[in-house]
Amino acid sequence: MPDDSFHVFDTTLRDGAQREGVNLTVADKLAIASLLDEFGVRFIEGGWPGANPKDTEFFQRASHELDLEHAQLCAFGATRRAGVQAADDPQVAALRDSGAPVVTLVAKSDIRHVERALRTTGEENLAMIADTVGHLREHGRRVFLDCEHFFDGYLYDPDYAVSVVRAAAEAGVDVVVLCDTNGGMLPADITRIVGEVAAASGARLGIHAQDDTGCAVANTLAAVEAGATHVQCTANGYGERVGNANLFSVVGALALKQGRDVLPEGCLARMTRVSQAVAEIVNISPSTHQPYVGISAFAHKAGLHASAIKVDPDLYQHTDPALVGNDMRMLVSDMAGRASIELKARELGFDLSGDRELLGRLVDRIKELEQSGYSFEAADASLELLLREELDSPVRYFEAESWRVISERRGGDRAGEAVSEATVKLQVKGERVIATAEGNGPVNALDRALRSAMEGVYTALAGLELTDYKVRILEGNSGTGAVTRILVTFGDGRGEWTTVGVGENVIDASWIALKDAMSYGLLRQGYPQD
Amino acid sequence: MPDDSFHVFDTTLRDGAQREGVNLTVADKLAIASLLDEFGVRFIEGGWPGANPKDTEFFQRASHELDLEHAQLCAFGATRRAGVQAADDPQVAALRDSGAPVVTLVAKSDIRHVERALRTTGEENLAMIADTVGHLREHGRRVFLDCEHFFDGYLYDPDYAVSVVRAAAEAGVDVVVLCDTNGGMLPADITRIVGEVAAASGARLGIHAQDDTGCAVANTLAAVEAGATHVQCTANGYGERVGNANLFSVVGALALKQGRDVLPEGCLARMTRVSQAVAEIVNISPSTHQPYVGISAFAHKAGLHASAIKVDPDLYQHTDPALVGNDMRMLVSDMAGRASIELKARELGFDLSGDRELLGRLVDRIKELEQSGYSFEAADASLELLLREELDSPVRYFEAESWRVISERRGGDRAGEAVSEATVKLQVKGERVIATAEGNGPVNALDRALRSAMEGVYTALAGLELTDYKVRILEGNSGTGAVTRILVTFGDGRGEWTTVGVGENVIDASWIALKDAMSYGLLRQGYPQD
Repeated sequence: MPDDSFHVFDTTLRDGAQREGVNLTVADKLAIASLLDEFGVRFIEGGWPGANPKDTEFFQRASHELDLEHAQLCAFGATRRAGVQAADDPQVAALRDSGAPVVTLVAKSDIRHVERALRTTGEENLAMIADTVGHLREHGRRVFLDCEHFFDGYLYDPDYAVSVVRAAAEAGVDVVVLCDTNGGMLPADITRIVGEVAAASGARLGIHAQDDTGCAVANTLAAVEAGATHVQCTANGYGERVGNANLFSVVGALALKQGRDVLPEGCLARMTRVSQAVAEIVNISPSTHQPYVGISAFAHKAGLHASAIKVDPDLYQHTDPALVGNDMRMLVSDMAGRASIELKARELGFDLSGDRELLGRLVDRIKELEQSGYSFEAADASLELLLREELDSPVRYFEAESWRVISERRGGDRAGEAVSEATVKLQVKGERVIATAEGNGPVNALDRALRSAMEGVYTALAGLELTDYKVRILEGNSGTGAVTRILVTFGDGRGEWTTVGVGENVIDASWIALKDAMSYGLLRQGYPQD
Repeated sequence: MPDDSFHVFDTTLRDGAQREGVNLTVADKLAIASLLDEFGVRFIEGGWPGANPKDTEFFQRASHELDLEHAQLCAFGATRRAGVQAADDPQVAALRDSGAPVVTLVAKSDIRHVERALRTTGEENLAMIADTVGHLREHGRRVFLDCEHFFDGYLYDPDYAVSVVRAAAEAGVDVVVLCDTNGGMLPADITRIVGEVAAASGARLGIHAQDDTGCAVANTLAAVEAGATHVQCTANGYGERVGNANLFSVVGALALKQGRDVLPEGCLARMTRVSQAVAEIVNISPSTHQPYVGISAFAHKAGLHASAIKVDPDLYQHTDPALVGNDMRMLVSDMAGRASIELKARELGFDLSGDRELLGRLVDRIKELEQSGYSFEAADASLELLLREELDSPVRYFEAESWRVISERRGGDRAGEAVSEATVKLQVKGERVIATAEGNGPVNALDRALRSAMEGVYTALAGLELTDYKVRILEGNSGTGAVTRILVTFGDGRGEWTTVGVGENVIDASWIALKDAMSYGLLRQGYPQD
């Protein structure tokens, strides 16, 4: 058993699943548990067996399907009901029999909640805690206790709140977790209260912070500063309302800023991958702007500082992105200079450092395109196609001759349905191809027509999927005559790439981005060119 | 001039615009400045005049187009170049001549950045500060000074960092702003360092926190705790990399948790609306999980606590959502409440308080439309048309029978030009009208065809101008089959109005919004209906 005098307790599968719109299957939960174990958290709270059939099944399947290297599973549940013995409460039995070696009990610690929500007395609540903990300890379970609404309760009636902590510790609880359930605390309150409770109770304390003030990470660190040695977090901060303390931000701060050994050797660098994989399973787009792991977390708008960054990147980043499995990215934006293009090209696998003339030509070309509305910030695939063109190895799987889209709606004002039909004419491997397809909109019709024209020759096209489509109108004040910038993202199951198209005509701009996204996809598949 | 001994300084338009993918037009910046002023921030940093033509234009137009009630505009720029006089530096002149009464100067305070990025000496850097501040003070400008990379610099060489603060204060700077430019700090460091710098310099201090550790809000509060009286924030936390301290979270904590008078009376309740309106303009989906203002911020999964919440909501929320213009939500779909619809109708000039049945019908209709992707947040004109329909006085200047758009591009890959042609069939004053027009895109062609069909009858149509057109793809993960929401803004020289259209087909959604915008425009002109 590794040392767990200080540990990370993950509750993505229980409290994180409270996030609005999240609905995890048992398979999802098993997959996430596996990732969290890889990341090296010490405890994984799996759910509430007995209260929720899906969670009961999770613990059953986990016992033979999960092979955990670092983590232990915890079952979550409540103390026994008022007026019965813990041994006779089926809910407690379900916890005991879940197979989890550790149980997290939730208990009321705010006397108002005891009286108004639980509708019992403060004394009976203490008895419920002592009795339930005692029963689980007798059966060899390790027990943590979540004090729900602790901070609000402490501010209202500190004596009662502390009596709950004492009762739990005396009954044999390992860690008493102080929960900011409503999430309204600020770090200074947390430091003060955790310090006072530690002094008054002598118990080992943990922290569970909700993010309603935007301070859950700081509140967690504030509790650690005051002596807490157990931190509850969720992957990507998923949780009810605003969310919970973000596992990755908390671990980042503890490991990189405070030098604590919170993860086993080698696990920290898995952070970015684990964050993104969990997001995929939960089916929420990964937050591009998440600390440490977001795709923008180490992105620099180059221009101004590019040359300085090249010389001394550490002056411009708060930590080395490689430590958390992320990368510095140079955004090719407005003020694109030679240095940033050179860095960007290197990132894409092209060494241009020896060719000043080529670099100059590229910079001019990019500036010109940016002036007409292009932006390569988010469109690496378009930038690579451009690079290859300037390097005299243009990507040419097909030549477009023309396209036409007809969209119409028949029937009255709110009735009828709009239909779109697209026709494309291409040269593919020396043959002229004409294809027509229908779609639920003009871009969808074009996408289908392009595929239909080429999928006989490039069968891999069927595996490429359009996963995102973004529209931005530039110069909002010129009305529908303004320039439209389209970003199209495709995926092939192994990765994603984004292309950009610009034009006065929204369909034309989409066409450019679509066409380039398919070309890049074919390049990724390794098709030879004519 | 109101008391500004403690104040909120917004830098959405300057530092917020550094967020990856954000690209604001001058019109966008003016609209955001107006919203921030409504929200009651004390200073609005508008950009860098002289360095960026768009920002120069912003300050020019702001002086006659913006009518600020609470805020003053600040121009941002750098201290003079090394080796010249401030009076001779065109960049400094651009700041002086921008018309902004306040200037924020950025200066290096980390000796490593002075030597390696600025490539000058520590002494010359101090002279650059003193000289530039002196010049601007002579010309009557109030000056704030941003100490870039302050905290990293202080940790490396505290004496030099403090000498920068002293030089600035002695030269006449009002507030010396300590910037965590790389965003790597944690609250405890901030409190300690701000306290030490205050003691060592005696200067009035401000704080600028980047969010790379997920602690920007807490870091801002930590600095205030240590004596800072100027807080720099951005709306929705927009900013480079992970972002900046979120204006709404910082104000929420200061006003609601610490009882500070940070905003003028009545402004706090605008928070949710302002947050969402800024997101619309920036064209980033509002974060559903943002503290205070997110649609999930006070959302409770009904069930477990539902009845307890109904009896005693304060036990389950950290603050009253009405204080920040948000609502508690019990059901996932429950977005439009009776009370808010009634309020909104009153705002538009309709008193519905006597008609509970009508209100119920309206709420149902709006919920249904919102579920299909509509959003009336920014589309008052569409909401008014809907209201009039439910009130049995629908606006019917014309009936649409059908539309068709043909777009095509002939010629090769990068050559040729896309053309669009639209045909509309309408009933106008009992006559069937067919009109066809060309445009530089499908929506432009539809706009022209609609006008061409009706301008003989409604001559005022010629005076209506399409001034803005926004596209938002909902559910970004379904590719081009996703639902598109269009916002169209028209103006008639006396005012502007916005309508919304939704559909799988981008042209169809645009058509709905265009048609309604014209109907509303005709209503404003006072044309009688048949």
